[in-house]
Amino acid sequence: MNPFDISVIAAIATPPGEGAIAIVRVSGEGALTIADRVFRGAETLAGAAGYTAHHGRVVTFSGGMVDDVVALVFRAPHSYTGEDTVEFNCHGGMLVTQEVLHVLLEAGARQAGPGEFTRRAFLNGKMDLSQAEAVADLIAARSERGRLHSLEQLEGKLGRRVGQLRTALVDLCALLELELDFSEEGIDLVGRDEIRRRVQHVDDALQSMVETYESGRIAREGVLVVLAGRTNAGKSSLFNALLGESRAIVTGIPGTTRDTIEESLTIDGILFRLVDTAGLRRANDPVEAEGMSRTRHQVRYADIVLLVEDASGRVEEEEIEDALHGLLTNQHLIVVFNKTDLVALEKVGIRYQKFIEDGAIVIGTSVTANLGIDRLKQCLVQSVTGSWIDSSETVVLTNERHLDSMVQARKSLKLTLDGIAAGQPNEFIAFDIREAVSELGEITGEVTTEEVLNSIFSRFCIGK
Amino acid sequence: MNPFDISVIAAIATPPGEGAIAIVRVSGEGALTIADRVFRGAETLAGAAGYTAHHGRVVTFSGGMVDDVVALVFRAPHSYTGEDTVEFNCHGGMLVTQEVLHVLLEAGARQAGPGEFTRRAFLNGKMDLSQAEAVADLIAARSERGRLHSLEQLEGKLGRRVGQLRTALVDLCALLELELDFSEEGIDLVGRDEIRRRVQHVDDALQSMVETYESGRIAREGVLVVLAGRTNAGKSSLFNALLGESRAIVTGIPGTTRDTIEESLTIDGILFRLVDTAGLRRANDPVEAEGMSRTRHQVRYADIVLLVEDASGRVEEEEIEDALHGLLTNQHLIVVFNKTDLVALEKVGIRYQKFIEDGAIVIGTSVTANLGIDRLKQCLVQSVTGSWIDSSETVVLTNERHLDSMVQARKSLKLTLDGIAAGQPNEFIAFDIREAVSELGEITGEVTTEEVLNSIFSRFCIGK
Repeated sequence: MNPFDISVIAAIATPPGEGAIAIVRVSGEGALTIADRVFRGAETLAGAAGYTAHHGRVVTFSGGMVDDVVALVFRAPHSYTGEDTVEFNCHGGMLVTQEVLHVLLEAGARQAGPGEFTRRAFLNGKMDLSQAEAVADLIAARSERGRLHSLEQLEGKLGRRVGQLRTALVDLCALLELELDFSEEGIDLVGRDEIRRRVQHVDDALQSMVETYESGRIAREGVLVVLAGRTNAGKSSLFNALLGESRAIVTGIPGTTRDTIEESLTIDGILFRLVDTAGLRRANDPVEAEGMSRTRHQVRYADIVLLVEDASGRVEEEEIEDALHGLLTNQHLIVVFNKTDLVALEKVGIRYQKFIEDGAIVIGTSVTANLGIDRLKQCLVQSVTGSWIDSSETVVLTNERHLDSMVQARKSLKLTLDGIAAGQPNEFIAFDIREAVSELGEITGEVTTEEVLNSIFSRFCIGK
Repeated sequence: MNPFDISVIAAIATPPGEGAIAIVRVSGEGALTIADRVFRGAETLAGAAGYTAHHGRVVTFSGGMVDDVVALVFRAPHSYTGEDTVEFNCHGGMLVTQEVLHVLLEAGARQAGPGEFTRRAFLNGKMDLSQAEAVADLIAARSERGRLHSLEQLEGKLGRRVGQLRTALVDLCALLELELDFSEEGIDLVGRDEIRRRVQHVDDALQSMVETYESGRIAREGVLVVLAGRTNAGKSSLFNALLGESRAIVTGIPGTTRDTIEESLTIDGILFRLVDTAGLRRANDPVEAEGMSRTRHQVRYADIVLLVEDASGRVEEEEIEDALHGLLTNQHLIVVFNKTDLVALEKVGIRYQKFIEDGAIVIGTSVTANLGIDRLKQCLVQSVTGSWIDSSETVVLTNERHLDSMVQARKSLKLTLDGIAAGQPNEFIAFDIREAVSELGEITGEVTTEEVLNSIFSRFCIGK
């Protein structure tokens, strides 16, 4: 994508599907002229002032009616993209909206790529790169916490904090490089201890932001909870009971669930992504074998594994080992003895002594008797809230790209500190600091490459 | 719902899901005041002119930022509803949009019911009832033909045509009732033959509209095509081949497909709703038995049944009878011999002699050799295009309610014609005509009940 491309782009800006209103957005130099080719109203859009709306019709080249619309005019630079923009509010509905877009493309606009409107907003200086990314995160926000983090980032909180730290490092570099000019005279403008202290201060600040990432990631993506265990342990019943609806097919026949089923559930404002899986057993049926392979994949990526066991059944030690094979140490394990209406919990808990000693939680439930479900929900919440970060106190990192840049910047600062300790000359130290400055600049977009921009904006939806 | 309710209503007007922009709409007497309680911009919305847009923030009662928005102001009666209206264009995304709605509800608006904005538009005389229904149909349009029919209805084509016929009947009633005043004198203002001729004319016009319904319904809903047949005949392979994607899981194991899978496919601008079903065989597995019961249900409602047979396998006469049990006479039957790469078509076609004589089409396909798929698609198109109505020539009925009203009106006109033939007095004849006038009035909403309105608007999406 050419960064100097100012051709007129158009796209549907509302979510796909049926709704009362859909928006088709067109932006770029000449957007008003192109819009006027398909719009019939009391006056032309090219003659309209910014921030005004106009009722009219969108028509085909041959004059056939496409839709009754309200056209909203924005004039450069006072628009989202910073360019001339028209937003057609048309009747919601997939076909209508596509047809409005279609006539605009025929009239000379080009279909916008993912995130191309926001990319132009960034290139035209309407927002920094971390704010542009916050736009995508805000749209995708699936939990209240994720929404608030994105909103703060959109307001520029992360960009400002990173900017402060970056400026501190730039100032330090300037001092070090100024000293070089006086190096013949052996003048120290700033003591080595002072340099070390200032670098350490920036590094500490970066470290505390890096530590917020796990909390931020969970707020954004939700907590992946995988229900696993033997066939017919009641995983699907428990899955339905947690959701409060009959989502998965439940029968008394082992192996009813074949594919993984995912649903979202919010408890106390925290988003959980609940995954029901095919039960584990030795099976010759290739459909079931494929299902089990998917189960193992899900278990590997889970934040929390709910190991569901039939409390009334017999479980061999090796079966437990087998089910939990591949479980990572940073995953939470909750062992759920289901069907406790049939047997007392203490009789079965002993089987999991080893896991309880390793920190696993054991809980009893009965879906039929509606026992333990609420307690299980509280267990899920408690598994994650221990690591929550209060975002009013600090900046919470939610984006892996920002995390990577900070980690890289910290590596450069580590080299800086090592260099100071080893008594290296100023130019070496300044070089390492410059590296960190550059890494931090990638977060806000002061330093960026076409490749990075392409990677960021390709993740946006089309129309944004 | 109180028809005189003019309280301020609010709802999300864009489709649910993630997009660049979402709209939250608020309408009613005092909508601007309520909007101002949550909006912080350069000026108040209450002070703004209609058809202007305003950049600002939506905030909570405590001043916390909810979103950066553009507020679009419409003033009564120049709005969709005919009332004061504000549309907040906010960042697309489920949570953000819900939060904007939430603060508006806290500020005094009421959550709008389904179709409540359009209902107000109807009650405020902005559109007739058939136009209001066209709004819903236009949004739901899934085929090009369906979209065009809805657009014509939205422009008032159906309403005008029904209005003309209704006026003709009203005029006739007026004449008949005027004659009553002169009945003592035995004066005939209009001859019985002339009355019969005029009633017949209206009835003919209604009949031709009623005949368009099947075509209109298929344009709106799409053609339901059900793939049925024995297990392992290759239904899922054929389903995937028609869609051009690997939608259904295909294995060599009979009974792989258990639940019905539906996907849409457009061929030559016609929407087909393709349903893959569980194969028919004697099974003890209750999951599979449930699947087969769903298959039979789908076959009953199909417009076209694709009976898929393995050309290389053996089929007993009674199995064919069994598979087609319950097939209705107005359903199209296409017998597809799949796997023809393995055997010649003429060798197997003979089995279906009886169905071919009854008008079934027999076609051979091979998914693995990619043979016959395009010809099958053409067969599907030809099965429906015979009954297409050219909507530029006539008004096409798409709505069952309109059909019912016309059928009822025609019954009343039948009574009228019978009465004329039997020489009944004017007041009886006029009474039957009045009934027809009333039925036709229900289409456009001149005559309506709260119950009818509730039923119509409850089918709308919320926010429309």
